[in-house]
Parts: sequence; structure tokens; C-alpha cells
Amino acid sequence: MTALIKELEDIVGKDGVLASKEERICYSYDAQLSEAMPDVVVIPENAGQISKIMKLANRRKVKVVPRGSGTGLSGGSVPVNGGILLLLRKLDKIITIDRENLMGVAESGVVTARFCEAAGKVGLMYPPYPSSYKTSMLGGNIASNAGGVMGLKYGVTGDYVMGMEVVLPTGEIIKTGANTVKSVSGYDLTGLLVGSEGTLCIVTEATLKLVPKPEFTQSLLVVFNDIESAAKSVSEIISAGIIPSALEIMDNATINAIEDFKKIGMPKTADAVLLIEADGIKEAVEKDAARISDICEKLNAESIKTAKTVSESKELWEARTSALPALARIKPTTMLEDVTVPRGRVPEMITYIQQIAKKYDIMIGTFGHIGDGNLHPTILTDKRDREEMERVEKAIEEIFKTAIELGGTVSGEHGVGLTKSRFLKMEKGKEGIEVMRAIKNALDPNNILNPGKIFGWV
Amino acid sequence: MTALIKELEDIVGKDGVLASKEERICYSYDAQLSEAMPDVVVIPENAGQISKIMKLANRRKVKVVPRGSGTGLSGGSVPVNGGILLLLRKLDKIITIDRENLMGVAESGVVTARFCEAAGKVGLMYPPYPSSYKTSMLGGNIASNAGGVMGLKYGVTGDYVMGMEVVLPTGEIIKTGANTVKSVSGYDLTGLLVGSEGTLCIVTEATLKLVPKPEFTQSLLVVFNDIESAAKSVSEIISAGIIPSALEIMDNATINAIEDFKKIGMPKTADAVLLIEADGIKEAVEKDAARISDICEKLNAESIKTAKTVSESKELWEARTSALPALARIKPTTMLEDVTVPRGRVPEMITYIQQIAKKYDIMIGTFGHIGDGNLHPTILTDKRDREEMERVEKAIEEIFKTAIELGGTVSGEHGVGLTKSRFLKMEKGKEGIEVMRAIKNALDPNNILNPGKIFGWV
Repeated sequence: MTALIKELEDIVGKDGVLASKEERICYSYDAQLSEAMPDVVVIPENAGQISKIMKLANRRKVKVVPRGSGTGLSGGSVPVNGGILLLLRKLDKIITIDRENLMGVAESGVVTARFCEAAGKVGLMYPPYPSSYKTSMLGGNIASNAGGVMGLKYGVTGDYVMGMEVVLPTGEIIKTGANTVKSVSGYDLTGLLVGSEGTLCIVTEATLKLVPKPEFTQSLLVVFNDIESAAKSVSEIISAGIIPSALEIMDNATINAIEDFKKIGMPKTADAVLLIEADGIKEAVEKDAARISDICEKLNAESIKTAKTVSESKELWEARTSALPALARIKPTTMLEDVTVPRGRVPEMITYIQQIAKKYDIMIGTFGHIGDGNLHPTILTDKRDREEMERVEKAIEEIFKTAIELGGTVSGEHGVGLTKSRFLKMEKGKEGIEVMRAIKNALDPNNILNPGKIFGWV
Repeated sequence: MTALIKELEDIVGKDGVLASKEERICYSYDAQLSEAMPDVVVIPENAGQISKIMKLANRRKVKVVPRGSGTGLSGGSVPVNGGILLLLRKLDKIITIDRENLMGVAESGVVTARFCEAAGKVGLMYPPYPSSYKTSMLGGNIASNAGGVMGLKYGVTGDYVMGMEVVLPTGEIIKTGANTVKSVSGYDLTGLLVGSEGTLCIVTEATLKLVPKPEFTQSLLVVFNDIESAAKSVSEIISAGIIPSALEIMDNATINAIEDFKKIGMPKTADAVLLIEADGIKEAVEKDAARISDICEKLNAESIKTAKTVSESKELWEARTSALPALARIKPTTMLEDVTVPRGRVPEMITYIQQIAKKYDIMIGTFGHIGDGNLHPTILTDKRDREEMERVEKAIEEIFKTAIELGGTVSGEHGVGLTKSRFLKMEKGKEGIEVMRAIKNALDPNNILNPGKIFGWV
């Protein structure tokens, strides 16, 4: 160990290596899982140092786990094998925001919100930021192909990665993609590496597509007395050819948790609310907002509130962004799940989740990006209560099975990591996983980069 | 050979195997290259038969080249190694067009235009169709990650592939992606396989994203007396935050070729024309069109014609779609190239192309998707003229080198195939190509599926 630490210090300097127990504990968790200690934490400054670290790790057969801010929700950055925890926070330069070419170049340790602000300063927008964007880093967003509230209209992180500089498991530094909006020269390595959860490469720099900031935005809060009507409204809106920039749902349990937490006048008796945002040219937005209201009214919306001012709109969105923290206050343990089904199957999925909660007598609050068919059933429990945790595990398994039966996926935007790997075969089948393993073996012959994640042990 | 043919007939039946010289000649070319004879042409009806063919090919170490309509422009489907030419035209079913979930499922042998029409019938649109869409097939579009005139606003084929059924080189049939708009369960095999030019898999079925058909569309034809102003207008339009659905350029040589061919009143003295289309909600389109006109006027546009009727608009687009056939009439050999540079570098690239044409005393007509920075310098020559062909080769090499120096790519949308493979290393470097080869070896250990394409011999 001391010999390894010495070699690491030769690469990144003494203050780039953290070995004390106290320091290592700080990096033993993500936003969902905890208590897996790395043997050593290394903080490189650039791709060159990371390349040397990977070559050293291959020579010594030491496992390496890359980590950004640790906001992940599936254990992808948790060092379950010990080894080197590679902390990317020093790669924090925004290299350029290019208004003319609608793109920005930044290092992977840049906090997502900082990049969004930099783009905003020149009238551009980086749409795929996740709800954790105030602390998450671009590299982690890319590694997990993060989605966010704007996915319905604008897509997810992967849709914005034009090219990357990455360090391969064997230490080579390569550039993928291009600085152009179109490129088909060779295999789309960017496509493969985005969402590979730190198992195929360490992202050091990314060229990210930006879009012009819309001139006008309007938010609506629609209250429903039955959640099925809310879900049906979503299908109707999209079938009508309207693509809102955001289309979120919160169920009764979530509404109450938010109101108890924030006291912002959420309708505590409502079965569900939809939070809808339209953006674009003013005339178009107003037209869409009017059509959305009509559709919701026809489907028996209890009330429709349109934000008149920016601050009113901010307040509506504060409700949504505080959904998770609000729920988390209720019980000691919060398990945020992430299932996605085809939009048309959302009403069924929501009903199933409610039935499963009843069946196993556990508390589940559901919210999420209903426009994408992406729901976050959030289980409120106490991991010290063995007996309840067993019911929780059964409920989670049933939720995933149901999602797949409805033509859905076990992860819409949080990644597989550790927590979903046992469900992956249900969705991808043996052959599908064999292909992924073959690619992993080809790029990481010693299996040292974040092994055991996604499809278990290779 | 006869033994192989017998085994193939056992799989697809007698009329699914074509072995006569006349029949094989029909599949010895694509839209750019010709004269590479397959040993046998096989026409399977489904993934199961293709799986059996691949297993047979592995057993006998016979090369296999998949082919759709042969509209490719880089030799990707040309059987330079002989072997089995796998013709996918019988996989021609449109399985579903799903209005509620904004997606369609179709087999890979479906002609692109047929799929576009099927989507159109329910008010949806499949935007990434290439200019060859009336004959090209979806499988070929996916294998080459085809782009088209709507790329600027709507992206390319890969942006619309949600999931696929593919047959791997070793014969396994797998499903990639999901039926949901978001999925991050495991590696993004869809991302890797789209654009792999028939070297990593044979696409048999695809789930494709569709978008609502815009309610209103407006086309403008803008005439310029100097091509630099045309190119500058493009940068200005995009910098102003306007994203037209199409933004095409044609230079003087192209304009004259079209006018001589079609007699539709194209301005023969103009140095360049821009063909611009905006789509969306009527109010938004009219606003954009007005702003586009202002920008072009400020940059000394000679004239701006706005299509008042659908037929006027059709006429403008007929000019663009006939650019290649019109140029092809002038000389016996047409070499359509495909370079892409960052939008901001387009004016320089155009100037370089003109200088290169002068330097080597050859005729080059340039048109293309200028909004994407994607240009198609089209060299008009006669391949029987050895001496001129040598100058042509030098010119092409210089064009690609220049594109890469300007931060661009050697292929924006046509693929690498055979014709660009010698330039790939210039762009991707040794390490980048090594990774691609490692993936190819992992998925195709016997190297029998379309070998020698993209990065030469592996």
C-alpha cells in the first residue's frame, strides 16, 4: 500500500493523495449507497496524470473508481472493491463557450450549474442538466447519461455530447467525436462511452452542444382529483402534437411532503398535479399553453394555475425540485427508484405502483418526468427495520418486473450501477449482456476500471 | 462454392440465392463505386435466416457484406472481398406507427420514403431522411447514420433510433435500446452500432422516434453575388438564435448545372444561393422568416424570394434535390465528397475548395447542408482520363486535409467505407483506430462481416 501511495504521489504530488481514514470516509458513498471504503483517494489535475495512474493501476492490478460529486443514485461511483478512488474535481476549467457554433468545451470536473450559467451569459442554454445540477459534475452526467426535467423536448445528456477527450482503462488518451454537428468517421465511440458509468473510460473533457435560449417560457400547475386523468392528459397533450419543455407529475404523497416542508400552498387533497412548461417564441408558447389548458379541462382538471410572473414560475418549480428532499424528511431511509415505460403505459404503471405499495404495506411517493414515461417511485422506509426492508426489496423487484412487462426499462436516467445490475438480464437478456462484457474485456483487459458495475462481475 | 450455395438454399430456399454472373453484377456497385463481384447473392426473409447465414459463414470463414438499396456513396456495401452479398430487401414490413408514443417500428429493408409517408399519414414526421430517401432503405440509413436536409434543426438518423433488433457477426440475435424515450440500462449498444457501416451487425428491425408534423413551413431562396456573404449570413442567422429546419447552399457551378438541366429560372450569374426553410407554429415561422430576410439583406443579398404557395416551395426544393443529377450530366464521372467543418469555418472551407479547384485545374461544384457545416464538393471528371484523375486524387486529399485543419471531419454523413478509410487516421489517430479495431475483433472474431471497411484491414 505505502509503495502504491508513493508512486501515486510521484504522479499527482503529495497533496493529491488522501490516505487517512477520515478522508477516505468522505468518498465512501453516493446519493443512494454508502460505506464502501476506497484504499486511497487520488486527485489528478489533468488527463496526462490520469493516464499515468491507469498505467500504474494496470501494472499493479489495482482497481480504480472515478468519481465526480457523488450525486449518483445507483452506486456507480461507490468503491465496493476498495482500490483507488479517482476524484475529478480539479478538472474544473470551462475552456470555451462558442456562441457562433452553438457549443461549449469544458473539463469533466466542472459543476453542471456553472456550465449552464456560462452558456446562459451568452444567451445559450444547456438543456439536459439533472435535478442535482447544482452539485453534480459534467463528467458524472456524461458517465450516467443523465436526464433532467427538459428531456421531453430537449433530450438527455448524450444528445449534447459532440465529442470527448477520455482516458482509456489501459491509459491511452483519445479524442472521440468531432467539433462538428455531424460526423460519421468511424465507430461512434462517443455514443458507446456516454452512459458507460465509468467502466470503459474516464472522461476528462467534453465538447457539448448548446441551444439558443428560448425567448419566452410559461409554466402551468394543473391539479387533478384522480391520477389517471393526469396521466391521460399527458398522452393527450403529446398526441395533439404539443411538446412541452417540461411535463412533470407529483402524486398525493409527494404533494403533501412538499407542502409540509415548504408551505407554498400545494393542494394537499389533490390526487396528483402536473407541472408543465412550454418554451419558444412568445406567440407559439401562448398557443401551446392555451391548448394544454383545454385538454386538461376536458379531462376534469380540478384547477389550472398559470404562472404570471417569473417569481410565480420559480415558486412552482421550487415545489418540483424539493420533491425528493421533502420526501426524504419523512423517514430515515429514502430509496429513489427510476423506471421508464412507453408514455402510453404510464397510467397503468402508476396504478401498479400504488397497488404494490398497498400489497407490501410500504410508503411510496411517486413523482417524475411523466412526459418521458420516466417515474421516480420513492420508497420511504428505515433500513434498520429488517422486516420492512424485506418487503421493500420485494416491492422494488415487482416494480421493475412490471416496468419491463409494460415494455419499459429498469433505468431511465439514473444508471444501473450496483443497485440495478441484478435486474439488467431481465431486460437485456444473456446475449445482450455478453456483448457488453465482450466490449468491456476488449477495452479493459485487466478489468480494473470500476469492475462489478452495470452487469455485475465480468 | 456449390456446397456453400446448397447450404444457403437450405436456409433461404432456392429463389433466395442468386449465383449467375448477370445477377451478381447487379450487386457489384453502390452509388459511387463499382465492379466488385460477390460470389453469391442471398436474400433472407427474417432475422432467423440471417442468424443461420452468419453461423454458416463463420463455420466456413466466408465474408458477408450486407446491402440495402446500394445508394451509399463510400463503397460501404461493395463486396470487395467477394463472398456473400446479403440483400435485405425482403425485410420490408412497417410493423407499427405509434402516434401516442411518437415512434414507429419497421424492418430494415423498408424504403425510407415509404416509412416517411406512413408517419405522415398520422400527422407525424421522420425528419432525418437522406436525399436518396426515395430508394434508400432504413437499414442502410442506420448503418451509415445518414443525415439529410433537416439535420440542422432535427439531427441525423442516429438521433431517431430508439432501439434495434440486430444479428451479430457471430449469429446471435439481440435487441438494443428500448421502446422508451429514455433508457440507460447498460452500454448504449444502439449508439455504437448506428453508423458502424455493416461491420458490427446486420440491422433487421428498428424502433424509430417520430415527431409531430409542424403546422406551417416557409421556404426562402436567397441570391448572393459573393459566396462569402452567403456563408456569413448562415453564421449570423444561427448566432441570432434562429434554427431553420433546412439551410442549404448551392454555388455558381451547381446553380448553372441545375438551370441547364431543369430550366426553373435559377439565377445563373449568382455566385451562390441559400435555400432556407423554417417550420413550426405559423406565427413563429413568419417571425423567423422575417428575421432571416433582414439578416440576409444586411449582408448584401441580391434578392430574396419567399415561396408563397406549396408548389412554389416544391419548385425551390426541386432545385436542391436535382443538384447532384444536374452536375452528374456534365461529365462522365462524378465524385461527390462530404466534408464537415464547424459552422464558423464554412466561409474559409468554401474559399479553400475554390482555390484547390483552380490549383489542380479541375471542375468542382459545391452544394450541401451549410447549416451543419456539411459541404458536398462534387468533382466532375472522367475516370478514363488518367492524367486528370491524378490531379483529382491530389485535390481530394487536400480538401480532406484542409477540413481536418479547420477542426472538421472527413465524413459528415456519407460514411468512411472504402473511399475515406485512408484519411481516417488523420482525424482519429492511431489510438482511436486501435479502440475501434478492438471492438471489431471482440464482436467479429473471424472478421467476416464487411471486413476492410472504415479502418482498412483489421
